[in-house]
Amino acid sequence: MYLGIDLGGTNIAVGLVDRDGNILHKDKVKTRADRHYSEIVKDMAELSKKVTEESGFSKSEIEWVGIGSPGSCDSERGVVVSASNLNFKNTPIREEFQKHWNVPVYLANDADCAAYGEAMRGNAKGTSSSVTVTLGSGVGGGVIINGNIMTGVNFGSELGHMIINFDGEKCKCGNRGCWEVYASANALVRQTREAMKQNPESLMWKEAGSLEGVSGRTAFSAAKKGDAAGQKTVDKYLEFVAIGISNIIEIFQPEKILIGGGVANEGESLLQPIRNFCKSSRSTIITTAALGNDAGIIGAAFLGAQYAKKIK
Amino acid sequence: MYLGIDLGGTNIAVGLVDRDGNILHKDKVKTRADRHYSEIVKDMAELSKKVTEESGFSKSEIEWVGIGSPGSCDSERGVVVSASNLNFKNTPIREEFQKHWNVPVYLANDADCAAYGEAMRGNAKGTSSSVTVTLGSGVGGGVIINGNIMTGVNFGSELGHMIINFDGEKCKCGNRGCWEVYASANALVRQTREAMKQNPESLMWKEAGSLEGVSGRTAFSAAKKGDAAGQKTVDKYLEFVAIGISNIIEIFQPEKILIGGGVANEGESLLQPIRNFCKSSRSTIITTAALGNDAGIIGAAFLGAQYAKKIK
Repeated sequence: MYLGIDLGGTNIAVGLVDRDGNILHKDKVKTRADRHYSEIVKDMAELSKKVTEESGFSKSEIEWVGIGSPGSCDSERGVVVSASNLNFKNTPIREEFQKHWNVPVYLANDADCAAYGEAMRGNAKGTSSSVTVTLGSGVGGGVIINGNIMTGVNFGSELGHMIINFDGEKCKCGNRGCWEVYASANALVRQTREAMKQNPESLMWKEAGSLEGVSGRTAFSAAKKGDAAGQKTVDKYLEFVAIGISNIIEIFQPEKILIGGGVANEGESLLQPIRNFCKSSRSTIITTAALGNDAGIIGAAFLGAQYAKKIK
Repeated sequence: MYLGIDLGGTNIAVGLVDRDGNILHKDKVKTRADRHYSEIVKDMAELSKKVTEESGFSKSEIEWVGIGSPGSCDSERGVVVSASNLNFKNTPIREEFQKHWNVPVYLANDADCAAYGEAMRGNAKGTSSSVTVTLGSGVGGGVIINGNIMTGVNFGSELGHMIINFDGEKCKCGNRGCWEVYASANALVRQTREAMKQNPESLMWKEAGSLEGVSGRTAFSAAKKGDAAGQKTVDKYLEFVAIGISNIIEIFQPEKILIGGGVANEGESLLQPIRNFCKSSRSTIITTAALGNDAGIIGAAFLGAQYAKKIK
C-alpha cells in the first residue's frame, strides 16, 4: 500500500493507493497556505495517518508516502526549492514529514505527479513516453521518458513558458509570447471577453450573463449553439493550444499527449481541431487525460516505484 | 575498439575509436548519394575494414560498429526510416552492413550521435542531461537525458521545427515561424543580405564582396570592425537563436546546452548575448560544442554503450 499526497494551494488531498493504482480511500483538508510549513506538513502527516486508519490498514503496511507539491522540487533531497503560492523556499518536506511518521517519503512536482499518474494508470498507461499538459490558470506539463519523470537540473519542465510568438504579449515571467499567455484557461477567458466586446449580439453574452460571468466554457457553449463569434473564439484558442502541442511533438515525439484541465471536458470538439493542426504528427496520439484530480494522488503514490532505486 | 561511421550526404567518414573516446585513425570516401543503398553500405563496410587494418587492429578486436545517419532512424530494427538527402526509405542499414561484416551494428540519427559524442567525450562530458544544437543549413539538435539519447516514437527530436513565431515566415515543413527559419546559418545569410540591401554603406559589402559572397561570418566580421548595421544584424540573429535556447531550457532544464556548427566559431561574441537573453536559466550552462565533425564519429562509436543492453 502507498499513500499519495496532492499538496495544493487550497487543499491537501491524501489517498491510499494499492499496487494496481486504485484509490481505496481518500480525504482532504484545507491547506491554509499562509501558515508556516511545519504546520502544513503536520496536517499532511495527520491526514495520512487518518486515511490509513479509516481504510483499515496499519501504518506498517504503508511502504512509502509520495508527495506532489507545486513549484520546483528537489526529489533527491526531498526539498521544495521554491513554491510561490505556498511561500515555500528550500523547505525540507521529507525531513519534516518524517518527524511525524518515519516512513520513506518521495517528493516531486505536482504536474509531474499528474503526468506520472496518467502514465501508470490513466490514458497514457502502457506507453513509455508521454506528455500530460494541463490547461488551467497557467499551462503546466509533465514529461515521461522511458517510463520515468523527466527532470532537469532545475527540476522539471516549464512547458507553459515555451515562446511561441516572440513579438507577442508580455508574460509574467518577463519574456514575450509564452504559450500560457495564449493557451491557459485564463487566456481563453480573456479572449472570450474581448470577442464579446466586439460582438454585442453574440450568444456568448447570454451564456455568460456578463463579462464577469465568463468561464472557459462560455465560448464553447455558444459555438455549439451555432454562434459565429463563439466559434471563431474557440477556433483561435484551439489554434494557440495546437501550436504548443505541435512543438511538444517536434521536441519529444512522445507516444501520447494528454490534455487535462477543465477545458478538456470539451472532449472531441477540443481534440479534433488540435489533431488537424498537428496532422504531421504521424504516430503521436493526442487525447484527453483520464484521471482528473486523482492523477496527482496516484502519481505521487507511485513515486517510490521510480525513486526507490535511487534514493535512500 | 569500436568503429564510428558518420554517414553524410557528401562523405562517409569512419573512425576507429578506443574506450576513452580517442579517434586512433580515420578516413573518408565520397557518399555519392544518388546510388542504391546497397552500394553505399558496401563502401561503408569496405572503408570500415580498411580503417581497421590500417590502424593495425584485427577485425576481431572491433566490438561493434555504430552508424550515424541523417533522417529518422529506427535504432531497434537498425533501419533508416527516411532520409531525404540519401533517398533512403525503410533502408535496412544493419542487415545490409552485416552481409559484408558480421559484427554488431548500432544505428542512430546523426544529430543524436553528435550530441551523444559531446556528452561522452566533449563539452557535455560528466553531465547526465545535455542538448547539443547545430546551427547549419537547418537547425538540428540532439537531446541526452539520464546519459541516454532521447528518442520518441517518431525517432528523435526536431528542435528546429519548434514554432517561435506563429504569425511568422513560412517554413518548408508547412508551419509558420519555425526556429530554423530564423536561427539557421542559412537564415543568417538571408538576414545579412537583407541588411546589406538596406545599408549600402555597410562594411558588410566589403567583407562579402557581393551579395553572393555572403557567409555566416560576414555580419560578425563587420560588427567586430565597428559596423553598426553588421552589429544590428548579429544582435537580431542572436536574439532568434536565444529564443529557441530559452525554450530548450524551459522544456528540458538540461545541465548544459552546447551550440555547434560554423557559427559557433564566433565563441564568446556568440555566447554572451545568448546567455544574457537566457539569464533566468539559473543553472543551465550555455557553451559551444567541442568536437566539431568528430562528435558524430565518437557518438556513433559509443552507441553500443547505450544500445548493447537493449538490442541483440
